[in-house]
Amino acid sequence: MVRVAVVGAGYWGPNLIRNFSACPDTELVAVCDRDEERLAKVLRPYPGVEAVDDFDRILRRVDIEAVAIATPVHTHAPLGVTALEYGKHVLVEKPLAGSVAEAEQLVAAAKHSGRILMVDHTFIFSGPVQKIKQIIDSGELGDLYFIDSVRINLGMFQHDVNVVWDLAPHDLSILDYLVGRLPSSISAFGTSHANELADIEDVAYLNLDFSDGLLASFHVNWLSPVKVRHFIIGGSNKSIVYDDLEPTERVKVYDRGITISDDVETKRGVMVGYRTGDVWSPHIQGVEPLAQMVRHFAECIRENKQPVTSGEAGLRVVRILEAAQRSIKAQGGRITISGENLLRHAA
Amino acid sequence: MVRVAVVGAGYWGPNLIRNFSACPDTELVAVCDRDEERLAKVLRPYPGVEAVDDFDRILRRVDIEAVAIATPVHTHAPLGVTALEYGKHVLVEKPLAGSVAEAEQLVAAAKHSGRILMVDHTFIFSGPVQKIKQIIDSGELGDLYFIDSVRINLGMFQHDVNVVWDLAPHDLSILDYLVGRLPSSISAFGTSHANELADIEDVAYLNLDFSDGLLASFHVNWLSPVKVRHFIIGGSNKSIVYDDLEPTERVKVYDRGITISDDVETKRGVMVGYRTGDVWSPHIQGVEPLAQMVRHFAECIRENKQPVTSGEAGLRVVRILEAAQRSIKAQGGRITISGENLLRHAA
Amino acid sequence: MVRVAVVGAGYWGPNLIRNFSACPDTELVAVCDRDEERLAKVLRPYPGVEAVDDFDRILRRVDIEAVAIATPVHTHAPLGVTALEYGKHVLVEKPLAGSVAEAEQLVAAAKHSGRILMVDHTFIFSGPVQKIKQIIDSGELGDLYFIDSVRINLGMFQHDVNVVWDLAPHDLSILDYLVGRLPSSISAFGTSHANELADIEDVAYLNLDFSDGLLASFHVNWLSPVKVRHFIIGGSNKSIVYDDLEPTERVKVYDRGITISDDVETKRGVMVGYRTGDVWSPHIQGVEPLAQMVRHFAECIRENKQPVTSGEAGLRVVRILEAAQRSIKAQGGRITISGENLLRHAA
Amino acid sequence: MVRVAVVGAGYWGPNLIRNFSACPDTELVAVCDRDEERLAKVLRPYPGVEAVDDFDRILRRVDIEAVAIATPVHTHAPLGVTALEYGKHVLVEKPLAGSVAEAEQLVAAAKHSGRILMVDHTFIFSGPVQKIKQIIDSGELGDLYFIDSVRINLGMFQHDVNVVWDLAPHDLSILDYLVGRLPSSISAFGTSHANELADIEDVAYLNLDFSDGLLASFHVNWLSPVKVRHFIIGGSNKSIVYDDLEPTERVKVYDRGITISDDVETKRGVMVGYRTGDVWSPHIQGVEPLAQMVRHFAECIRENKQPVTSGEAGLRVVRILEAAQRSIKAQGGRITISGENLLRHAA
Repeated sequence: MVRVAVVGAGYWGPNLIRNFSACPDTELVAVCDRDEERLAKVLRPYPGVEAVDDFDRILRRVDIEAVAIATPVHTHAPLGVTALEYGKHVLVEKPLAGSVAEAEQLVAAAKHSGRILMVDHTFIFSGPVQKIKQIIDSGELGDLYFIDSVRINLGMFQHDVNVVWDLAPHDLSILDYLVGRLPSSISAFGTSHANELADIEDVAYLNLDFSDGLLASFHVNWLSPVKVRHFIIGGSNKSIVYDDLEPTERVKVYDRGITISDDVETKRGVMVGYRTGDVWSPHIQGVEPLAQMVRHFAECIRENKQPVTSGEAGLRVVRILEAAQRSIKAQGGRITISGENLLRHAA
Repeated sequence: MVRVAVVGAGYWGPNLIRNFSACPDTELVAVCDRDEERLAKVLRPYPGVEAVDDFDRILRRVDIEAVAIATPVHTHAPLGVTALEYGKHVLVEKPLAGSVAEAEQLVAAAKHSGRILMVDHTFIFSGPVQKIKQIIDSGELGDLYFIDSVRINLGMFQHDVNVVWDLAPHDLSILDYLVGRLPSSISAFGTSHANELADIEDVAYLNLDFSDGLLASFHVNWLSPVKVRHFIIGGSNKSIVYDDLEPTERVKVYDRGITISDDVETKRGVMVGYRTGDVWSPHIQGVEPLAQMVRHFAECIRENKQPVTSGEAGLRVVRILEAAQRSIKAQGGRITISGENLLRHAA
Repeated sequence: MVRVAVVGAGYWGPNLIRNFSACPDTELVAVCDRDEERLAKVLRPYPGVEAVDDFDRILRRVDIEAVAIATPVHTHAPLGVTALEYGKHVLVEKPLAGSVAEAEQLVAAAKHSGRILMVDHTFIFSGPVQKIKQIIDSGELGDLYFIDSVRINLGMFQHDVNVVWDLAPHDLSILDYLVGRLPSSISAFGTSHANELADIEDVAYLNLDFSDGLLASFHVNWLSPVKVRHFIIGGSNKSIVYDDLEPTERVKVYDRGITISDDVETKRGVMVGYRTGDVWSPHIQGVEPLAQMVRHFAECIRENKQPVTSGEAGLRVVRILEAAQRSIKAQGGRITISGENLLRHAA
Repeated sequence: MVRVAVVGAGYWGPNLIRNFSACPDTELVAVCDRDEERLAKVLRPYPGVEAVDDFDRILRRVDIEAVAIATPVHTHAPLGVTALEYGKHVLVEKPLAGSVAEAEQLVAAAKHSGRILMVDHTFIFSGPVQKIKQIIDSGELGDLYFIDSVRINLGMFQHDVNVVWDLAPHDLSILDYLVGRLPSSISAFGTSHANELADIEDVAYLNLDFSDGLLASFHVNWLSPVKVRHFIIGGSNKSIVYDDLEPTERVKVYDRGITISDDVETKRGVMVGYRTGDVWSPHIQGVEPLAQMVRHFAECIRENKQPVTSGEAGLRVVRILEAAQRSIKAQGGRITISGENLLRHAA
């Protein structure tokens, strides 16, 4: 049993608290938050968990092996680095940090301390993404041609983070996991409406170029009247559609290649019934992603192994977020993504 | 009755032939195509219509007042300009021409000849677009915040035109009609897969900036395993979703404004049930757009008035297409849209 | 080439005219209708087809081998029997006749004359039904447990036929084709609203019992604000859902058996994610059912073979329709289906 | 604060426990279950609630004013009647009892004791049903023509209750609430597959006749590969579709009347675009039905008023369930519904 403290009892914290409590491999010993009232309320169903209002107390308790940080983004690096320096294993809510520089500090601190640094890219642990990874790794799709994601809904505005830093980490972490390499450049576009003074974008588009024919595009939006979670992965042999709002058939594999024809008759035929192969919707395990994530964290600590959503994975996502931010401010100017182009990580 | 000849009996021609035949205000007298066999086949149900294999014969017949051109894009301007010079009224299949220069020649020729030049932007005459125009013009939506269109499907590859010139004219003509002004700049991204040698893009994204907070984005794609025709218009007061594949409720108006909150409880509430107003789906007239278009052409000739989808509207669309093309070749480089910023045209 | 005359140029006639014209195995020589104006209008695109206002002329022309009857239901039997007596092959629009007695006359006349009698159960020739038949015949579904069909929409009221005779023939013919045997009894319920004086039912439910655990239920409705075409076939091993309004994935096969559990935990699990197998949506050929039907008629005449949708199949459907009608008038009283229980017909 | 004990910690009990705990008007003081292990597990998050394994202790505690019974159906009446005799207010999970006789005992015991008897017809307290009730009561729909409900999914088999007693109480309680009167007769059909020996129906159809043109039909099914929760209410002026699986637009009002036409042209027109009015989807409050239900129970106790889902409402539903059961065993034989035809209850 890994003894864990959760830091931050705000929006995401209660989810971590619930899962660290329920996980057979972890023991939740304390939760830290400065807002005592909120903390008391959140911990009501967990009488055995200690409420702590001072982060230092967490750091000094040697029986606490790991901390999970669910505080505002700009505090991820200072809190995380300190915790690593105190010899704690660290799990950080997504995004890993608010800048590349900070994310690099976290990665460096983890390396130096020899402790586990993991980022909570929850979607990686979900049934649909696990299944899609499996299918892509089997080679079934052929070459990847395009990836298109739409993640839009009416969202509440936050004062410190724009729609890119709020929603795109989900898609970028999925992209990173599935594709296993960084894009070579990015162009992004965004506008602010509800919060113009603060210049916080609420609509944004990201275009990522991989220099090998693969184009990835992401639409994130807090102003959409309808909620959409639609992900298409187009391949040379088959393609996948992942609709996270479908109640049962969330992942569909389309056995459909491209046919070239300049014959008008064929063209008409295709327009009438444009599918020419079967569709297959694999059964998806009904796992709770967060439960899997928490378990994986415990397992990596126990076996001293690199998490699938390692600090490096978190850094790669922050690298793209920061480049996207710069591109938006440059009205879509193309930003080259620096940084090592990592080899495909092990599943 | 306006006496009309259709030029080109290929993919789109038969649709024009059918509608000019059926329209009570037009009389289809001749169809011109070099492929005599195809022409004979197409005209079988129309024994009274003359088959002509030489465009000159059409030009010289003084009883033919108008020609409708449905030939490959690069021939639109030479054929159209000649017809206008011969005093014919001219309808051109979309896009108006293959370049801004050619489109300008057409507009100039129409001005010089005093004849009607109209482009077949069919969607403008459809029930849903007419209804959306009405709603926008009523001011109900408030300020326009974003326009997002997804027009994707498995498509056949053409040898002369890429996916932008094939599909985007629909969206750009709708945008032009609804918004009534040109964007200030465009950035576009595209890749070629099936036809790499010919360098014909099959996936593309267009980002149009209007310099006033309005961002319009278009995804056009010939490689998508699923067909999507989804158009969102986000406004400060209300928003519209237009799904052209919905069998009955194609246009929906969402009575939903933006609310700003940094309160966690409210945020959670919104995530659970994120709609806070009614949805209204207006009844749409079941008209055939092409029949309306043909009728409007006849009406403009008869009353000597400017068509809603005038040569100028066609030129504006071509201006964006050409800029998109240049931007794609410059890997998303931002292209300023030149040209007069037209006043809102009359409905 | 089979030389055919179509009788009746009303609602369904033009569809037959179009298909007999286009079919390479048939030649449409004449169309008969008493309404000369309607006839002239319908035949305008077919200058080579003779317009006839007197059925006798059709009968007497020895060059006409076959007639297709698309007249009001109560005239099917008198016209069809006469045509058979004159040695014509006969195709009858569904339902075959307005009563069992009349349908039996048609079947007897066909037997006596040695001519082909076929009923236009169009759906049997559609891609989805053909695919479902194939899957059922492969044994993949296991035992059939239930069949449920919903065929509802806003429909226009006819003065001579109720919603059961209008819509249920589609479902009953599909049922007959897929299951290959008659139910043992039927109970039906219906009410009249729009046309109470005429007592023409506009909403009806049919419950068919096969005495072996298979229950088939049909909901037909002219008053529904939404259009539904939803067919479920539940089997012991797998099940099929056929949604005729789905643009592409019209047939889905669910690899899902029944699991019995009185364990609360399992029960909860199933409620959260209740699918436990893959879903497979086979590619469906984009054929036009009516074109296939017409071709099959010609083929049966040429090869003197029994049609898949034979007079007997039409009679079986009428048997159920008549029993349904009697049951409705008896407020759901159970009606035993008489008549031979036919062996599974050849595909 | 009403002091409450929950009896039964099995499938539904934990939901009641959670809601009685959270409700500001109630205090959960004890939970009773014979399975001590299960009880301990369920109560872990509620350290202040007493675990009791003997129902008598609940009865004898005078500080407990009310009990909520969530035990197997056949125990509802004995436990409920005893509790009422001990002067407790009683809430019973649906269905109220396993037979009309038992339900009548409960109603009589409540009358005699002067205590509140309420049945947990949860759906009555849901946002969609509340909104539909409001619309129906406004008279907007006109006369009710038909009500059709489909409530199907893959369900787990219970050993003591069939699909009718498991799923139909939801629909019948909604029907009772919306229509406010009993049907005059019922015919029902069902078959057993998975549990043939026990003769427990897993597929069933209920047809309810109201003798005034209103027909209500219910399809309940534990063998369906797909989950459907679809409710149509057809009226003479407008109609409602309530789809409980729609994420946002769960209730839609169709402004669509019936038009009668024997003109073929009109008929075609309607078939092409069969809607002739707007669709309106009212905003639905995102309330938790169970929280509302618990609150209403407390309110009825405090103000000594009749619950909306009173014992009588529960009895009416059981009356139909029992009649349905008898009809199924009589292969659809028509069963007259006895019992007072209650006046429309106050909202």
